[in-house]
Amino acid sequence: MKNVCGTSRIAGCQFTLFPMSNQFVEIILTALEEVDTSKVWKDTDDVSTCVRGRIVHIFDVTKAIFLHAAKTGEHVAMSGTFSIGCPGDTDADVYMDETEEPLNKELSASITQQAGCKFALYPLGREDYMDTIYQQIDLSKSRGVTVSGSHYATRLDGDVHAIFHTMQDAFQQAQEEVSHVTMTFTITANSPSNK
Amino acid sequence: MKNVCGTSRIAGCQFTLFPMSNQFVEIILTALEEVDTSKVWKDTDDVSTCVRGRIVHIFDVTKAIFLHAAKTGEHVAMSGTFSIGCPGDTDADVYMDETEEPLNKELSASITQQAGCKFALYPLGREDYMDTIYQQIDLSKSRGVTVSGSHYATRLDGDVHAIFHTMQDAFQQAQEEVSHVTMTFTITANSPSNK
Ligand SMILES: [Ca+2]
Repeated sequence: MKNVCGTSRIAGCQFTLFPMSNQFVEIILTALEEVDTSKVWKDTDDVSTCVRGRIVHIFDVTKAIFLHAAKTGEHVAMSGTFSIGCPGDTDADVYMDETEEPLNKELSASITQQAGCKFALYPLGREDYMDTIYQQIDLSKSRGVTVSGSHYATRLDGDVHAIFHTMQDAFQQAQEEVSHVTMTFTITANSPSNK
Repeated sequence: MKNVCGTSRIAGCQFTLFPMSNQFVEIILTALEEVDTSKVWKDTDDVSTCVRGRIVHIFDVTKAIFLHAAKTGEHVAMSGTFSIGCPGDTDADVYMDETEEPLNKELSASITQQAGCKFALYPLGREDYMDTIYQQIDLSKSRGVTVSGSHYATRLDGDVHAIFHTMQDAFQQAQEEVSHVTMTFTITANSPSNK
């Protein structure tokens, strides 16, 4: 079953940026300031930030925030959950009128950053959900990332752009098959264990 | 449908501790050292730590690690996913023979810490999953926490013990109804925004 609404459905991401540094406030505020979030609905509190809108912009904004924090050279991580098709989720629908062009593409492209990431995809409300996880999402075609298994998650290592591209592809494919999909992730860069 | 295997099924948590401090390495290592993890299987890499075993010990260990990091007074957060009933998940089954008594109960009880937390429960493989989320889990009986709604998540504010108790209750109840359940969470303490 393909969803007729396809990519026009509103997506969201509830995430937190974690700079492991005494300058965490400055790093968070600077990253949020440098990234153009005008094509997404955004709400931040002391636990997390929620962005909502088209899939392309949700991934553009989260990737850009992570990259801008990571380029400080500090050990930074981001953890969150992407969601689409949550029943009753109608706020911020006005942001679906935005054009497809990602606002942070150029600025992000100028940043090269290696990272490690674990993610897990959860198609909801379907008895055949494991088929979607294991068969529909073919990560072997992912370019620029090393894919490995992990308890409860799939690990991706490589450039941040390739990692987010792989996650966006997996999310995009899953939501074409299943109405309500969530995808959790934790990505980390500049870890001292890798130096 | 109740699962006959009930609480004897192996649970796990894939989590990361994030101290927003230049002393992050020391805070993480000290917390892991002070907490007794001998009743769970444990594996740590540069992205996250995975613990597996009985539900009671998974929650005892994650709570204790968060508390021991938070008592430093630094701004610390923890983000992760609890899981149970993942098909094909059989490693570390030997830890299911451990007794029910949590090893870090006394040490944790000596620490009082306020926190904010967002969590979301995902019963998998069931078409009636929203019923489980909304009807089976009655958070109004939760003591010591303020419960509020949030995009894609439920927010809990209060003492860390009450927050983890509420999450453990919700997870316990959900996995009695549904075989495969995951629960994501992000908890934060000593945030400068609350000072
Ligand atoms: Ca999840």
